[in-house]
Amino acid sequence: MADKLTPRNEDFSKWYNEVVQAAQLADYAPVRGCMVVRPYGTALWENITAALDRRFKATGHENAMFPLLIPMGFLQKEKEHVEGFSPELAVVTIGGGEQLEEPLVVRPTSETIIGHMYAQWIHSWRDLPVLINQWCSVMRWELRTKLFLRTAEFWWQEGHTAHATAEEAEEETRRMLDVYADFAVNDAAVPVIAGQKSDSEKFAGAVRSYSIEGMMGDTRALQAGTSHFLGQNFAKAFDIQFQAQNNELQYCWTTSWGLSTRMIGAIIMVHGDDQGLIMPPRLAPVQAVIVPIWKNDEERAAVLEQAGKVKSALSDFRVKVDARDGLTPGFKFNEWELRGVPLRIEIGPKDVAAGQVVVARRDMPGKAGKTAVKLADLQANFSELVSRVQKALYDRALAFREANTYRPENYEQFKEAIEKGFALAWWCEGRACEAQIKEETRATSRNIPLEQDEPGPGVCVHCGEPATRKAIFARAY
Amino acid sequence: MADKLTPRNEDFSKWYNEVVQAAQLADYAPVRGCMVVRPYGTALWENITAALDRRFKATGHENAMFPLLIPMGFLQKEKEHVEGFSPELAVVTIGGGEQLEEPLVVRPTSETIIGHMYAQWIHSWRDLPVLINQWCSVMRWELRTKLFLRTAEFWWQEGHTAHATAEEAEEETRRMLDVYADFAVNDAAVPVIAGQKSDSEKFAGAVRSYSIEGMMGDTRALQAGTSHFLGQNFAKAFDIQFQAQNNELQYCWTTSWGLSTRMIGAIIMVHGDDQGLIMPPRLAPVQAVIVPIWKNDEERAAVLEQAGKVKSALSDFRVKVDARDGLTPGFKFNEWELRGVPLRIEIGPKDVAAGQVVVARRDMPGKAGKTAVKLADLQANFSELVSRVQKALYDRALAFREANTYRPENYEQFKEAIEKGFALAWWCEGRACEAQIKEETRATSRNIPLEQDEPGPGVCVHCGEPATRKAIFARAY
Repeated sequence: MADKLTPRNEDFSKWYNEVVQAAQLADYAPVRGCMVVRPYGTALWENITAALDRRFKATGHENAMFPLLIPMGFLQKEKEHVEGFSPELAVVTIGGGEQLEEPLVVRPTSETIIGHMYAQWIHSWRDLPVLINQWCSVMRWELRTKLFLRTAEFWWQEGHTAHATAEEAEEETRRMLDVYADFAVNDAAVPVIAGQKSDSEKFAGAVRSYSIEGMMGDTRALQAGTSHFLGQNFAKAFDIQFQAQNNELQYCWTTSWGLSTRMIGAIIMVHGDDQGLIMPPRLAPVQAVIVPIWKNDEERAAVLEQAGKVKSALSDFRVKVDARDGLTPGFKFNEWELRGVPLRIEIGPKDVAAGQVVVARRDMPGKAGKTAVKLADLQANFSELVSRVQKALYDRALAFREANTYRPENYEQFKEAIEKGFALAWWCEGRACEAQIKEETRATSRNIPLEQDEPGPGVCVHCGEPATRKAIFARAY
Repeated sequence: MADKLTPRNEDFSKWYNEVVQAAQLADYAPVRGCMVVRPYGTALWENITAALDRRFKATGHENAMFPLLIPMGFLQKEKEHVEGFSPELAVVTIGGGEQLEEPLVVRPTSETIIGHMYAQWIHSWRDLPVLINQWCSVMRWELRTKLFLRTAEFWWQEGHTAHATAEEAEEETRRMLDVYADFAVNDAAVPVIAGQKSDSEKFAGAVRSYSIEGMMGDTRALQAGTSHFLGQNFAKAFDIQFQAQNNELQYCWTTSWGLSTRMIGAIIMVHGDDQGLIMPPRLAPVQAVIVPIWKNDEERAAVLEQAGKVKSALSDFRVKVDARDGLTPGFKFNEWELRGVPLRIEIGPKDVAAGQVVVARRDMPGKAGKTAVKLADLQANFSELVSRVQKALYDRALAFREANTYRPENYEQFKEAIEKGFALAWWCEGRACEAQIKEETRATSRNIPLEQDEPGPGVCVHCGEPATRKAIFARAY
């Protein structure tokens, strides 16, 4: 701990790198492009995992574990898929001291090997739907890396489902997009826009891709989760057929959907400030830290005893007592602010005498966020307090996004908007048009929001062709 | 579902393979030596994970996530370690389309890369101990494979800790061995013997290894968890040093400990019978299945309504209602027996009328295990019933192990004992002696029990040299 962080408005990217390492979320690994997620980052990921897994199970999904290594030939069975992923593969060519006949790929994603297994498990309409999710890490060779945002190995979940009809599969695709949005909004306090990806931005092998997109603290966009309707592309490539109720043999309709440790990057960049992280309370590894304050042994005994009582009273929450010797309270305050603990509970000798604690909100620095709370009231009010911080973080992030979202009516305004944040504009949805916009502005279409703010048709903000929907354009992580 | 299983006493190995696949725990993958863990097996592993993770956190450990790929050079830094693992490595030689300068190994275990990180994180005695665990899969090239017991990829946790003194590290090694034993006995209902591994059986790079060993249903042994005192071997190889309180720079003392999906193999082989699996209730994915029995629509409505009420009343337990149409109750009984659900709750129209259900215990086939229970009593008694099944499984397994454990006093008796089960005998602990025993009997020393049944010294059962401790010898998985 901890020289001062670079201010966000001076160099956002530098601030990000510093805060990730200083808060001990993650570290660079000695393997090119890979990261180590340290205990504090892992605890956050475990809370994300639990919050999503609960939702997956509530919507009828089960977890399974598929192999890490995939035969190279599997990837080649779906043409767009292999084209999309080949440049990024890590390839095992030696096993048990011998050259392998067929190289094995460290999974970049698992549609292929799961498709192969589904072909063996699915026989009849009675076997459908198959609703399976996997928690694992995947590997995509990356040279320019940034912790959590772009690393060769990252952790994620990948859902893979098979259905009897296109309608059911499309419904599943949208259901899981909703699950992601619900998680992002209610647990991560990250406002997101749910929408459809453009043709050039969709998943390699998908018919249609959807995403949730958030605005980071520097107004750039981050894709925080994706859900894909794969049509029958993978079912045909892997021969996933079933006997329908009318006895015909038909191909399944499949979906896949994933959310990764990138979400940690989003949480950092949406909520953090110049003092460091701010964790949304529902996901925070430590929801409240108790800092006892003393000057001598007698005071020390009294405040530590009180701290123990407060911790017990708050046993429904993730509370830590920082009883370390040899460090000043100020040092501890800074450290827990850097690490983004949403609530700090200070207990000094006077507080013990007065039967109270001082609660400080991480999201409201200075006096405004400090309140003395009677011990008798603390337990009853704590849940409410936690919810208030959670809501404040969301409201602030939403207001920030709205303040930085523009509705340009011509291409000049569009280019100005891109410099400042999101541009929500009528768009023709053409591949060539998107490529030109990207070349001219470094912005890409993030998605075409499912909820449109006004009915079409309109005119494409770039090429003037007819447009039926508006899209969000922005520079993206 | 499901031709009859091969009886266990006819061909135990065949029974095992059949039951794993028929119960849909796991399946062979299209990658040589690898497996797919299906949802039912994954749900069991998740319960194992939760039961262990709770114990790890209660003993002060945190989780972290380290890279999957390890530079080849790292393994070579610890001589015994690289010798032990080289023949089993899967090696990545191509990344992003280019030949790598240094090959990367898919982790067979993570002492090396974690050691490298600890060297960067640990500076002072204040940073110690470091108590970290990782949940992941690892890869060890295997040609002869058996689902859960020996596969190229398997799932596990690996704990890695660093300490200021040898005593603390040894204490940690033994603490985690105790954690494993406690988990095996109380959650998996698998009786285990905790002991020290012989010189030839210890971990590559360890000073001392400990294990828990169980007796399977065919009287062979299975190592179900290991804990290693690594001394300063890895600290010296990776330069993990700290400034001690006396200001001297010292090497840390480290430990590692792991328990894997092999434990699922143990659960299958310890508890299963000719009808299939028997899951220990504390880990069972489904603790009770409700099978409603009806002949017509009116009955169907009544029993399903009752089934819903029973499920609600038992909401503290993992209960499933099998309401599938078109299958007979008998078919469902067989299927859930095969899958090892510990308790079955039958509800027919007469039961509805009588305000009761019939509860059948999986571990007591036939009438002896069936009881009619009044609805009013079910909720209050269920926890007790679950505990009774859990205890009965443990008691039966312990009695089986005791009945098949021999205390040979000479080598003739020893060889007879090995044919029938465990041999607990005085042993000189010599490497050469163990090699001869192995060659002559195909048995290895499983471990030297920490709790000895009589005080030494004795005389080695094989070579006649002085012996201070008895060891367990057996043929092993």
